[in-house]
Amino acid sequence: MLTQTAIADGYLDWIAVDWGTTHLRAYAMTSQQQVLAEAKSADGMGGLAADEFEPALLRLISEWLPEHGLNVVEQGQVPVLACGMVGARQGWKEAEYQIVPCSPQSRDGLTKVITNDKRIELQILPGLCQLNEADVMRGEETQIAGLLATKSNAFSCVCLPGTHSKWVQLNQGEITEFSTYMTGEMFALMSEHSILRHGVNSPEWDDTAFLAAVNHAVNSPQLLLNDLFRIRAKGLLEAMSANTARAHLSGLLIGSEIAGAKHYWQSQRVVLIGEDELVALYVAALNHLGIDCEVFSPKAMTLAGLSNAYQALQDR
Amino acid sequence: MLTQTAIADGYLDWIAVDWGTTHLRAYAMTSQQQVLAEAKSADGMGGLAADEFEPALLRLISEWLPEHGLNVVEQGQVPVLACGMVGARQGWKEAEYQIVPCSPQSRDGLTKVITNDKRIELQILPGLCQLNEADVMRGEETQIAGLLATKSNAFSCVCLPGTHSKWVQLNQGEITEFSTYMTGEMFALMSEHSILRHGVNSPEWDDTAFLAAVNHAVNSPQLLLNDLFRIRAKGLLEAMSANTARAHLSGLLIGSEIAGAKHYWQSQRVVLIGEDELVALYVAALNHLGIDCEVFSPKAMTLAGLSNAYQALQDR
Repeated sequence: MLTQTAIADGYLDWIAVDWGTTHLRAYAMTSQQQVLAEAKSADGMGGLAADEFEPALLRLISEWLPEHGLNVVEQGQVPVLACGMVGARQGWKEAEYQIVPCSPQSRDGLTKVITNDKRIELQILPGLCQLNEADVMRGEETQIAGLLATKSNAFSCVCLPGTHSKWVQLNQGEITEFSTYMTGEMFALMSEHSILRHGVNSPEWDDTAFLAAVNHAVNSPQLLLNDLFRIRAKGLLEAMSANTARAHLSGLLIGSEIAGAKHYWQSQRVVLIGEDELVALYVAALNHLGIDCEVFSPKAMTLAGLSNAYQALQDR
Repeated sequence: MLTQTAIADGYLDWIAVDWGTTHLRAYAMTSQQQVLAEAKSADGMGGLAADEFEPALLRLISEWLPEHGLNVVEQGQVPVLACGMVGARQGWKEAEYQIVPCSPQSRDGLTKVITNDKRIELQILPGLCQLNEADVMRGEETQIAGLLATKSNAFSCVCLPGTHSKWVQLNQGEITEFSTYMTGEMFALMSEHSILRHGVNSPEWDDTAFLAAVNHAVNSPQLLLNDLFRIRAKGLLEAMSANTARAHLSGLLIGSEIAGAKHYWQSQRVVLIGEDELVALYVAALNHLGIDCEVFSPKAMTLAGLSNAYQALQDR
């Protein structure tokens, strides 16, 4: 599925690309960082073989390039700046890691990709890694750079819920520490492949069960593997409904993550970047624990971060 | 695959059946509880449709029945006593639960199954359930009954490692409390379906990594979802080998279970019933924490438990 939207008139200066495991989004940008058009598809890097990356990208952006619709300000190649899992070892080309503590974005460390189509000049932004407590990110660092460029007042704890949720500590614009939790992937595995799969699939939800499970998991995180099995037992013995079971499962996993990340959020405001539905669960859980939250859109932060990176390249 | 072994001469009195999710074992028994023959197949209840249970059982036992080889002491139907997941809701016929606190075996609560083959009279032993902290077991209660019938000196904590590990507290022959941990299933999901799957599959092992991970998980169980992701990061950043990663994954999960079950094993000897290779990991982990262990074979304990149940039926 490919979606293209023409948004504004103007001259194409560069192309911003957000390429994750399950999605690909491209934006035709002016030199003033306005979005001329955007396009997206489900060609995430996770589903592509090595020779499928360039065709997947061109399907989205080729009609923006010289022979086609949008005007290009100058002759020559169109810069394309990409972030995300496209730079992973299993991606198009493995990009570098910046090592924390560091700024979420640097002018260095970009990885050039040689394309067959010479109308574009593709560079992939580096990811971040942490060496003392081994951890990696690709894509979230760009969202955090976007956040720093967008949000004026101070903040030091950012949470990015998702398949692999990130908790990030910042100090004066530098990322000092981060931790990744396999929460979203675990929810998918439990609800699709485990013994729980028959009892948790419901379009409905149960807020009370979710918050009770968060509370339980925050207080007793050592019981997670027991609590997961007991969802099955509650189904058998208490006829727990699938919507309650689903909310309970989600609450146990998010609660376990929040318990682990306590030193990030303790006694401070949490800035969250994530998709509406998922982020609402984190906000509910954190508010329940007395923590204030502020929410930003991942799409907007990624675009702001890519724009910030492009401008920094122009400025030097 | 069907394996049959003739072990002794004598008269068939009854048939013992151990029917789990992935295995089926049958034993031709004398009235003195000697094993005349045993047969097994991979026809676990998890892979069978409703009409496939009886044929699967008859493939193993039909040649023991009157028209065939082994002599039957008396005319009439041969009693068949079965335990395990065959009595689950998705099994042949849903058997009752005894409610803890209770003895692991009672003379009541057996579920008769009407078979097409009238040479056998099949009964399924009840499982156990716990209502206050919802939990269920089917099969392990029979192993514990076998343990009580076999082992003379006192013990009060039994651990049964497996796909769904059980920790059981006993007091004067009664099960007072038990907890199930999804440890084995989680290991399978992580190593076969998660992002870790490419980095943990090795026939080799790393004892040091296993014990270090146990230690870490016992002390920091709230970090489980983070630690699981970090196996991936260690593969990327530290080129952690698949054997080390596999042992690390196993240690994190078993350590998390042991952390949760602390009130079972704290300051007492643990009696373990489980398959050699898996139980050796639990013994290593518990010894590392200063806990003494004693190990019994699940096959022997199941047979002793089924024999105990059959004798109790004869005695009344």
